[in-house]
Amino acid sequence: MSKPKVFEKPIGVKDYLPHAVAKLRQIENQVLACMGSWGYEQIMTPTMEYYDTVGVASSTSDQKLFKLLNNRGTTLVLRSDMTAPIARVVSSVLKDVQFPIRLSYHSSVFRAIEEEAGREAEFFQTGVELVGDASPDADAEVVALAIASLKAAGVNRFKIAIGHVGFLNGLFEEALPGEHEAQEELKSFLLGRDYVGYREKLRSLTLSDAMRSELEGITRLRGGQEICNQALALSLDATAQASIRHLCEMWDALAAYGVCEHVLIDLTMIGDFKYYTGMTFEAYAADLGFPVASGGRYDNLLKQFGRPAPATGFALKTTRILELIGDGDSEAKVERILIAYDAEGRAAALDKARELRESGAAVSVVTERMDADAEQVLRDAAAAGTNDEQVRYKGVAFTKLLTYFGGNRGRE
Amino acid sequence: MSKPKVFEKPIGVKDYLPHAVAKLRQIENQVLACMGSWGYEQIMTPTMEYYDTVGVASSTSDQKLFKLLNNRGTTLVLRSDMTAPIARVVSSVLKDVQFPIRLSYHSSVFRAIEEEAGREAEFFQTGVELVGDASPDADAEVVALAIASLKAAGVNRFKIAIGHVGFLNGLFEEALPGEHEAQEELKSFLLGRDYVGYREKLRSLTLSDAMRSELEGITRLRGGQEICNQALALSLDATAQASIRHLCEMWDALAAYGVCEHVLIDLTMIGDFKYYTGMTFEAYAADLGFPVASGGRYDNLLKQFGRPAPATGFALKTTRILELIGDGDSEAKVERILIAYDAEGRAAALDKARELRESGAAVSVVTERMDADAEQVLRDAAAAGTNDEQVRYKGVAFTKLLTYFGGNRGRE
Repeated sequence: MSKPKVFEKPIGVKDYLPHAVAKLRQIENQVLACMGSWGYEQIMTPTMEYYDTVGVASSTSDQKLFKLLNNRGTTLVLRSDMTAPIARVVSSVLKDVQFPIRLSYHSSVFRAIEEEAGREAEFFQTGVELVGDASPDADAEVVALAIASLKAAGVNRFKIAIGHVGFLNGLFEEALPGEHEAQEELKSFLLGRDYVGYREKLRSLTLSDAMRSELEGITRLRGGQEICNQALALSLDATAQASIRHLCEMWDALAAYGVCEHVLIDLTMIGDFKYYTGMTFEAYAADLGFPVASGGRYDNLLKQFGRPAPATGFALKTTRILELIGDGDSEAKVERILIAYDAEGRAAALDKARELRESGAAVSVVTERMDADAEQVLRDAAAAGTNDEQVRYKGVAFTKLLTYFGGNRGRE
Repeated sequence: MSKPKVFEKPIGVKDYLPHAVAKLRQIENQVLACMGSWGYEQIMTPTMEYYDTVGVASSTSDQKLFKLLNNRGTTLVLRSDMTAPIARVVSSVLKDVQFPIRLSYHSSVFRAIEEEAGREAEFFQTGVELVGDASPDADAEVVALAIASLKAAGVNRFKIAIGHVGFLNGLFEEALPGEHEAQEELKSFLLGRDYVGYREKLRSLTLSDAMRSELEGITRLRGGQEICNQALALSLDATAQASIRHLCEMWDALAAYGVCEHVLIDLTMIGDFKYYTGMTFEAYAADLGFPVASGGRYDNLLKQFGRPAPATGFALKTTRILELIGDGDSEAKVERILIAYDAEGRAAALDKARELRESGAAVSVVTERMDADAEQVLRDAAAAGTNDEQVRYKGVAFTKLLTYFGGNRGRE
């Protein structure tokens, strides 16, 4: 095992330079403000949690958790999502706060990765949890808020696909009663969107022609409200029927939110978080193969922390959105001013710097003492007989150079 | 070793509830804006770094570093400060950017702690690094910016004590040439501000009366510019003399910044970061025993990353400042509105919610379907024949309740 070189950072993690930070901060602030306007209040939880509590409850597979030991020898994990930590908080410090509880967050999360190209070990998520509400209206609220949040982040062309864990569970149990292995295999083909593999697997199973045809048919169950009616015509058990009715109600609420243009029902959708129990959804931006947001209902997680309650929520994949959105010019342009001075002009120069900073400019100062090159800057400016506009100094572009703070040069 | 209970979080880490997050975000935004107005641009670095590079270069003792292994078996650390990661960035991704480089950050940092009461394993720091400038003006700039940053954070009553590592090193080497163990012991008494221990140690050493008296005398070398002149009268080697002259120049620049009321020279000040090479400082808030900011010059750190350069900087101890400052009413009050509706009024209610959100209010919605208690809220409001002001629902205070979105009740 070779030693890392001094300039290297670990694989899968990033440095964010000022331009990227400005964009990230803008997304963060606008999305959190949007969530705030929907009544969601921001919380922060620690980077480290106990493995035996939050680690085990999280949706992340064990080998993808970053583990470390504290001084007592207890195993800690770096948080892999914010849903399990928030479930802990709702069940402990917030245990006397009545439901519904609406919380938002912006946070880095961690995944131990194999060294595959492009996989990230640390990335940002911005999301909400709505705890204590089992209704279709609550699910519609988080989907509508996901849409508003994506727009607030600057993502305008996207679709949200909504499915329901209960539909597939019910349908497969009806078709293959008790055959859990086959059911799981079918679900994992759907999760991977491998419809060819899914159909091949179906052909290998003992099924009536009618049932096989129904199961094949669900890959075509994608669209608007009409999908619900088509699905209700299938051979469904009570669970699957209730799931479809839940989606129909959600659709009505989403219509009231005026967001149906962004939504489609996709009954092959199966969230990849093991704690999902109800509707799940993923948002896809135009021309991108990966989701920019995902969410769903998880009605069994809170009871693992001792305060049973239904819950629903979503997370934007903020790091991906950062890569997706263009630089634009939405970022407020700050005037950048360079002030050069010598020892004699120092007091006047620093007074001027203070005044300009208070007026909102970004002011850097430079002295001959600080830097030999500054003498040249001063000399050039004096020779030009004017205070320049649009100067470059040490590779940085300034909108203005003020040089009148020298004993032997012209003053203001 | 007992298993942690489900509701527990690790020792030394915190949950920040909405009220605390709002305060923390306000400090963060105001301090970063202040730093921006001084020409410092924000960067972010990963939570994890290589132990062999950033870990070893950091100022944190080995047993206080949180260590973990990645999938390759390489040791990583959770960052214990931001100075070493920024030195890595300046020497790698920013290697072609000319000095001086001005960078700011707001970040959590980590320390593996013994289970002492009140020690924190994760806390926030907000700071700057000014890289590539060895002048007293650069040191004065970071001290003046530390003062401006503390004010921006809402801390108004504080003092900054400035010392110089070179002064004590020079003085002790003059008094006790080559006796490094005795020198280190004296310095550690000063670091712990244990002046009794310091004097006792002096008495145990073989020193001339004049020299012992001089070394005892430095504990009284605290004050304004006059301290520099008093120090120059001591038996100083070239290093110590140059250090004092550096502090005198800094004082002149700080006077030009108009901030001397917040500053005192304290020649017993010795930063507890092993990489400090020049001036060091700590900021103390009134009536508090611990520093709220600290900083100093570190001219040897960058060369460990392959790009030798002088550098200076500071960090606010943001988590402590959060505890220090009162709640105040600086936080903008947002109007919180609750809208209750039934299925028939849904479209009108969600329209109204959207309109209010766009106007800047925080709007939560509730339906009978969402929650049986909502029916009571609606009934009460209908009975009162009016839309209430200042309602409480589920423990949350709203400024207004709108209930006219029901099929069987009065409409707007």
